[in-house]
Amino acid sequence: MAGLKGKDILHGNQFTKKDIEAIMKVAAEFEKELKGKGALNLLKGKILATLFFEPSTRTRLSFEAAMQRLGGGVIGLGSLEGSSVAKGESLTDTARTVAQYADVIVLRHPRQGSAKEAADAVPIPVINAGDGAGQHPTQALLDIFTMRKELGTLKNLKVCLAGDLKYGRTVHALAEVLSLFGARLFFVSPAMLRMPEEITASLRGRGMEVTETEDLFQAASQCDLIYMTRIQKERFSDLGEYEKVKGSYVIDQEFLSRLKKEITIMHPLPRVDEIHPEVDGYAGAAYFRQMRNGIFIRMALLAMIFGKR
Amino acid sequence: MAGLKGKDILHGNQFTKKDIEAIMKVAAEFEKELKGKGALNLLKGKILATLFFEPSTRTRLSFEAAMQRLGGGVIGLGSLEGSSVAKGESLTDTARTVAQYADVIVLRHPRQGSAKEAADAVPIPVINAGDGAGQHPTQALLDIFTMRKELGTLKNLKVCLAGDLKYGRTVHALAEVLSLFGARLFFVSPAMLRMPEEITASLRGRGMEVTETEDLFQAASQCDLIYMTRIQKERFSDLGEYEKVKGSYVIDQEFLSRLKKEITIMHPLPRVDEIHPEVDGYAGAAYFRQMRNGIFIRMALLAMIFGKR
Amino acid sequence: MAGLKGKDILHGNQFTKKDIEAIMKVAAEFEKELKGKGALNLLKGKILATLFFEPSTRTRLSFEAAMQRLGGGVIGLGSLEGSSVAKGESLTDTARTVAQYADVIVLRHPRQGSAKEAADAVPIPVINAGDGAGQHPTQALLDIFTMRKELGTLKNLKVCLAGDLKYGRTVHALAEVLSLFGARLFFVSPAMLRMPEEITASLRGRGMEVTETEDLFQAASQCDLIYMTRIQKERFSDLGEYEKVKGSYVIDQEFLSRLKKEITIMHPLPRVDEIHPEVDGYAGAAYFRQMRNGIFIRMALLAMIFGKR
Repeated sequence: MAGLKGKDILHGNQFTKKDIEAIMKVAAEFEKELKGKGALNLLKGKILATLFFEPSTRTRLSFEAAMQRLGGGVIGLGSLEGSSVAKGESLTDTARTVAQYADVIVLRHPRQGSAKEAADAVPIPVINAGDGAGQHPTQALLDIFTMRKELGTLKNLKVCLAGDLKYGRTVHALAEVLSLFGARLFFVSPAMLRMPEEITASLRGRGMEVTETEDLFQAASQCDLIYMTRIQKERFSDLGEYEKVKGSYVIDQEFLSRLKKEITIMHPLPRVDEIHPEVDGYAGAAYFRQMRNGIFIRMALLAMIFGKR
Repeated sequence: MAGLKGKDILHGNQFTKKDIEAIMKVAAEFEKELKGKGALNLLKGKILATLFFEPSTRTRLSFEAAMQRLGGGVIGLGSLEGSSVAKGESLTDTARTVAQYADVIVLRHPRQGSAKEAADAVPIPVINAGDGAGQHPTQALLDIFTMRKELGTLKNLKVCLAGDLKYGRTVHALAEVLSLFGARLFFVSPAMLRMPEEITASLRGRGMEVTETEDLFQAASQCDLIYMTRIQKERFSDLGEYEKVKGSYVIDQEFLSRLKKEITIMHPLPRVDEIHPEVDGYAGAAYFRQMRNGIFIRMALLAMIFGKR
Repeated sequence: MAGLKGKDILHGNQFTKKDIEAIMKVAAEFEKELKGKGALNLLKGKILATLFFEPSTRTRLSFEAAMQRLGGGVIGLGSLEGSSVAKGESLTDTARTVAQYADVIVLRHPRQGSAKEAADAVPIPVINAGDGAGQHPTQALLDIFTMRKELGTLKNLKVCLAGDLKYGRTVHALAEVLSLFGARLFFVSPAMLRMPEEITASLRGRGMEVTETEDLFQAASQCDLIYMTRIQKERFSDLGEYEKVKGSYVIDQEFLSRLKKEITIMHPLPRVDEIHPEVDGYAGAAYFRQMRNGIFIRMALLAMIFGKR
């Protein structure tokens, strides 16, 4: 995949199935190499700049760790108050400035389309780490990488996406990527948080089997994997409605024992109540391993962007 | 001391006298090596994560400098607003996530016991950099290392711990560590800020000589070293009481000239009024050298945790 | 220029014309070397500390990038809330502490004279990255480096400094530095934002030709280069006055086409309205290249301070 050299990473659907397989292959190689050597020098002398205009722990830190594990350096806007953004600078001017100092930019910004806007303004690659309700492509890649590792294959997968499917950019991109591998999808959410109609229609238009339901247990019973997401209280005007919904989307020991089969559980984190901590020791609880896979996927993307793989 | 490899550093009393001597030996070696070479590669490819849920300048920066001087990398939560903690994530979930990205965690948190809690949750070593009114073990180690360097020995030391002995986690851990070396201790504080009774009793129970007094000058006259701490205004309900107390715990030129002998002065910093800046040029003023020793002690601990010494 | 080894960089007028030429020579060398190798190891094992008590994007990030491109490490106070400054520590105590951990300090502080104060308190070099309305010497150096690169020479330059000449520390230092190279200067500003009389008088006293005017177009017609700065709304008590002034200091396509000649445009950034984004593609628009030159100048200064050039 020479095609990633010098490229932006903006949108989940910029990748073909073959691209994704190539990225996962490199990620798996880095995982092995790290165990052996610990330190790599592939990106020595390169600098990654993080521009995070919205809260983030795992995405920012995992990019910073990935860059440093490849031997590169990191600079970053620590907080917005301490930057020229506070002086009224436009996103494109900030991005153009940072592009003079760094070799790649990782951007998170609340406005949909902002990553594309920044990418068009600068001569260096931009990686979209979340643009509002838009995309978060590196998350989708690490998610599918985790699925393959946990289940051994991506063939004939039956996957349940559950929780807030309306506002979650993570599940939107993930559904698109899963469609490349022909997964059978179950969308589980309260009525008011259903997957946007255009996404469901587009998936079905491409011949995918998609089931929509409000019943997590019933869907889980038919699946290999539950991808759980957080339901946000602030989306509800009727708090009684929220409490009802919330209660029906909790994975705990009782839920798992009723299921009577092994199932893999993923979550982009942070979680609040939707996965009980008592589940953390369960063999199928993959959400912390999922975090770790973020390092390998981001190492792969960075190395490929710089033409080192 | 192979025993530190892969271990957490949580509490001052996890160390024996022999352990502390081994750590100080390694710290002294690093001090020498840094002068010679400047750059070390011992921890190349390793990543330290700082999780600071409370203000810190010197502890965080000295860990970051120590790690980099050993050739390692650093990632960190810059400010709480910009992290998933703002989304309601638990400490253990945050720690577990960061443990997927880094090789060691340095944690400061306002809740006593939080470092132990995080350490129990993650597979990598956790270093306690202050857990509320609890412990701050690396501070105690750098303090005793400084004492030995300044005074040439730890034998038959007479040490005056002064200021706020009730709330200061620094003096609690230090008193414990000094007890291993058989120091003669003077606790100097206003009545309302006395060393907690259980600590004093425990020290005396182990046969240590401990004198409690409110008179700094009288105690200092019998000591080799004053370890001064900041008295916090907000602890007092009666401000008149505060002003009286505050005035009696100030080290200045006049105080030193009345003493009629050389004495070593330490302070964990930041100071406010309790050591006058005119004292900074005094030969025995060791508090900035004390800061520097923090680098060597933390380099030693990091190297030993990774089994490199 | 062995003379920079171990020295502070505090004030634009600490440099002779020869010094500045030496610094620019080293900067140009680093620009070439970076293109070739990418990674340098000159400052391996050295640590730079950033202490920014005021907002900054480009100055802080470009110092951090410069240090890392030379192989060194960086530590920094991320935000003031998270530091001991919040506990009432004095600037000199903070600087002295940081000087125990790092090999060079880069300081931005709102108080004029603060950089000198910190430099006097610590044994390591301090670089002034802006002290209130005072100085910002590394900006002046990168500006003159940019002028020479853009125009091929610094001889017989005709330069227009425009915008807020009263409060802008950037233009004060730059005027001083330009005077060393015998430039012909045009000061363009509204009456209430004129260059301070003592600076204009001092320049004229040294035999420089200085023209003051409110008419940007007329001045630009006689110049090779416009150095534009931001006019801050908050300086005006009469907003009608602000709107009038603001409108007369805008560089856009229309302005450039009226000029009927090529002109170089610089700006320290961030800009607000004074340069229209439609100008960004103009060949003479040098302000983003100017940002990039900041890396090379700061690499040169750091290398020279450590005696590596």
